[in-house]
Amino acid sequence: MAEGQRKLANGRERIDFATDPASYKHWKLSTDGEVATLVMDVDENGGLFEGYQLKLNSYDLGVDIELADALQRLRFEHPEVKVLLLRSGKNRVFCAGANIRMLAGSTHAHKVNFCKFTNETRNAFEDASEFSGLQTICVINGTAAGGGYELALAADHIILVDDGSAAVALPEVPLLAVLPGTGGLTRVTDKRKVRRDRADVFCTTEEGIKGRRAVDWRLVDETVSSTKLEAKVAERAQEFAARSHRPSDARGIALSPLTRRVSPDAIDYEFVSVAFNRADRLATITLRAPETSAPASADEIVAQGASFWPLQLARELDDAILDIRNNEFEIATIIFKSVGRLEDVAAYDSCLESFREHWLVGEIRHYWKRVLKRVDMTSRSLVALIEPGSCFAGTLAEIVFAADRSYMFVGEREGDNRAPAQLRLSPASFGAYPMANGLTRLEARFLGTPQDVENARAALGKPIDAGEADELGLVTFALDDIDWDDEIRVFLEERKSFSPDSLTGMEANLRFGGPETMESKIFARLTAWQNWIFQRPNAVGEEGALRRYGTGQKPVFDVRRV
Amino acid sequence: MAEGQRKLANGRERIDFATDPASYKHWKLSTDGEVATLVMDVDENGGLFEGYQLKLNSYDLGVDIELADALQRLRFEHPEVKVLLLRSGKNRVFCAGANIRMLAGSTHAHKVNFCKFTNETRNAFEDASEFSGLQTICVINGTAAGGGYELALAADHIILVDDGSAAVALPEVPLLAVLPGTGGLTRVTDKRKVRRDRADVFCTTEEGIKGRRAVDWRLVDETVSSTKLEAKVAERAQEFAARSHRPSDARGIALSPLTRRVSPDAIDYEFVSVAFNRADRLATITLRAPETSAPASADEIVAQGASFWPLQLARELDDAILDIRNNEFEIATIIFKSVGRLEDVAAYDSCLESFREHWLVGEIRHYWKRVLKRVDMTSRSLVALIEPGSCFAGTLAEIVFAADRSYMFVGEREGDNRAPAQLRLSPASFGAYPMANGLTRLEARFLGTPQDVENARAALGKPIDAGEADELGLVTFALDDIDWDDEIRVFLEERKSFSPDSLTGMEANLRFGGPETMESKIFARLTAWQNWIFQRPNAVGEEGALRRYGTGQKPVFDVRRV
Repeated sequence: MAEGQRKLANGRERIDFATDPASYKHWKLSTDGEVATLVMDVDENGGLFEGYQLKLNSYDLGVDIELADALQRLRFEHPEVKVLLLRSGKNRVFCAGANIRMLAGSTHAHKVNFCKFTNETRNAFEDASEFSGLQTICVINGTAAGGGYELALAADHIILVDDGSAAVALPEVPLLAVLPGTGGLTRVTDKRKVRRDRADVFCTTEEGIKGRRAVDWRLVDETVSSTKLEAKVAERAQEFAARSHRPSDARGIALSPLTRRVSPDAIDYEFVSVAFNRADRLATITLRAPETSAPASADEIVAQGASFWPLQLARELDDAILDIRNNEFEIATIIFKSVGRLEDVAAYDSCLESFREHWLVGEIRHYWKRVLKRVDMTSRSLVALIEPGSCFAGTLAEIVFAADRSYMFVGEREGDNRAPAQLRLSPASFGAYPMANGLTRLEARFLGTPQDVENARAALGKPIDAGEADELGLVTFALDDIDWDDEIRVFLEERKSFSPDSLTGMEANLRFGGPETMESKIFARLTAWQNWIFQRPNAVGEEGALRRYGTGQKPVFDVRRV
Repeated sequence: MAEGQRKLANGRERIDFATDPASYKHWKLSTDGEVATLVMDVDENGGLFEGYQLKLNSYDLGVDIELADALQRLRFEHPEVKVLLLRSGKNRVFCAGANIRMLAGSTHAHKVNFCKFTNETRNAFEDASEFSGLQTICVINGTAAGGGYELALAADHIILVDDGSAAVALPEVPLLAVLPGTGGLTRVTDKRKVRRDRADVFCTTEEGIKGRRAVDWRLVDETVSSTKLEAKVAERAQEFAARSHRPSDARGIALSPLTRRVSPDAIDYEFVSVAFNRADRLATITLRAPETSAPASADEIVAQGASFWPLQLARELDDAILDIRNNEFEIATIIFKSVGRLEDVAAYDSCLESFREHWLVGEIRHYWKRVLKRVDMTSRSLVALIEPGSCFAGTLAEIVFAADRSYMFVGEREGDNRAPAQLRLSPASFGAYPMANGLTRLEARFLGTPQDVENARAALGKPIDAGEADELGLVTFALDDIDWDDEIRVFLEERKSFSPDSLTGMEANLRFGGPETMESKIFARLTAWQNWIFQRPNAVGEEGALRRYGTGQKPVFDVRRV
């Protein structure tokens, strides 16, 4: 259940990540040839939870779910769109950021997962630009404060109206005693490379910065007078469109709604099942192999559209992960299983590999990359159980490498006539799905022994049994029938018994050895600090700034620095 | 005052970082030619605070102050030492890590600053190895748990006795619901490059790992039976000594005690003064230029020893920063000022530059690097005021670039006949003092405009007035007499009014744009997660694991994951 002081609006019991443009409450998406326009016009009374109004284009998770959906649809349904204009539908206000009353009344767990999802959505804008040539121009017509400016920071180009009042601001520190939690600090220093002392001034100036100084300090790319705005926006849109490599003649596919059967202890999609064992704080996600043979041409993939197995599986898995993250806070461990024939999965991986230059296949692979990153960033213990009858091949093998641990069954199970478990690697394991830190999961795994990546490459395309997998270092433990049940049981009980917080911190560190990127810095460095601050009485206590915001009372701080 | 539930032992009022080998309670330092031995033999009743005993070689900040001192003395007093053997004086116990009762009864601010100092000390071991050829071999004769294993991780080589019981462990997660807070997780993944799933197993196995598996998993470098231990240690010491580039024929200098005059609102050293304005939550650190001309030879530097101005200044500044960090938690902002002639400081910088190949000058420069990093890592707002009569030249100019902001006075002050403020750069600004992220402070400052580093280089050695400094981007604001007082006052009041926590988080992010290193990951990523966990009821609440440890009662956890 979605827990917290707050109730979901309209009597709903779970936060639902499925939406479509016809259902949007807060955004208007339109396309006109190469240019799409996404207008933010938040419905004050359309909050996800009861108890607050979304004034001044402030947002909650519900607003962001629609934003993420809009971007996803542009990638799959509108391959002809090369430039997205991100605009406000409100007069003299771009976006006031995350709604403060929503934040003040949310549980810590909801706040953290809300920030995580909004971060993933901002990253998705940058991913769309870098890998799909779908660039975003943000047009700021008024105040862009906090999360409002952080949304702009995700764009490729920021135009600020120069009318003496429109400004960008990160007022979190002076106003709310928290941090800009959606990548703001990191994008200011690492993406826009604002000089650190100027960033200090900017982030402590409640009213923000406007006009010439905003350009000089690189907070925005240009300012334009109100009268010249539309002409300038059109000019920039054309200019950016000319640079894009998106295909001009492609027809999109429809992302039709997923079919979900929700029962008290399970959620069943077509290729994904989630089984909850809440007493043991477990969720088991089972992925099923395709039932049809892989398409022989890119046209056939387009014709299958959203029912093309790799795409449908990715969408179902994505939805399942988001559902657990945001609705099932007490689940300690996610168990990944798979069912099906290794060769069937491998055939689809070969299909993706063969047609990887086709725009749709490219989008599917980039989507899998994002879904796998979502798995990496999920604050639950992750374990893959590789059993007889499983099909962790290629793309699915990435799930094994994303897990904190993996257990592989040696030989046959008594009374089970399925063939012994095998793994299989495909070229996808060697570059298609980099993690947030820029490494493949195998590179991250073998940080100390790069030769092991090459050893794994030598096994590419071959079935790998438990003994070999253990030898190659691809699984944590290979266990036979005698030990399997006990070892798994002890592991799961252990995980259930540990402090959820220390597990979250431990996993966040161990999963990301080696290099850092802007993206990994946002999730690790910035998020960790924000999580800390979200716990501190100076922000969330009775007299803290988040609670007192808008009450007319000043916050009272414990002045000790740490 | 050192605050907290706990009182300092022996009626002391402040934590004091000054010590020397004759005063050590917990360590025994001896040297024998190229090899030194540092034996940890913690005095159970020698805790820094009242209320706990330091059993099983567990440590508190007092133990670590001695450890840091010992290493510092080896670098300056014993240039002939090439290998340090780090050993335990207790039977079958290497070190049990940070004392848990001390942690459970400490304030959050003390815990965080304790971890910061211990991290800096571990980093100092690695710095000594990398830059001075002073390598550490850690000999683990029994249990090395938590901080005990983290201490070993700072060494170049870890020997574990193979006696069926000696083991290394990071039991924080299963036992205490916190993280290994002194770099453990990061060094396991990034330094020793343990496979991430094995790291997961290791960090959740309370009893740790011993023998063959400890070597196979790269947790230690070798195991040796008890009977062969001494021969092996001697062999390794010889082997490592042969690789070192430390000078064999150099004579060390004595690090004589600093002279400090402590009054209620000030601490005065010879070249550093700290003035506290506690009502306004300010500490002003004033650095004074040398009073004698710079030595003309390396021999003269050696002869001056600890009174050589750059070394004495570094030691005084280091002590002052540590004092504020650990004793003055309510200070919001540190103001850096300097007094003296720019040329006098510049002359010493030239002297350091000229003799930089001499071992002692090398040590002094590496020490300045560490002191400046300590400034970077200090969780207080830092501001440099560059006024008439100031001397921010070369090494001292780094303080300006380390500050969150700098203000430079334009022209003369009314009624003040001192010459207008000037800055001066030396070659030291371009490589001698890299930050934790590997960048020089100018590179970090000009992340977006690398050309500005070159523009600054062109001004090397020349006096730079406020107008030029502003033009070159070296200061945040250049202000004249009319605006100066008001602007500074408003800034300081603002800083005082903001939440200390959000400032800490903001500064920790803005100071470190760009790349990350293992060191910066430890301070940013790991520390931030640990700070968060140190706030969570699952660790520090009445029913949390830290509080309940050793009581026989099991902790009770809020099982929600975030």
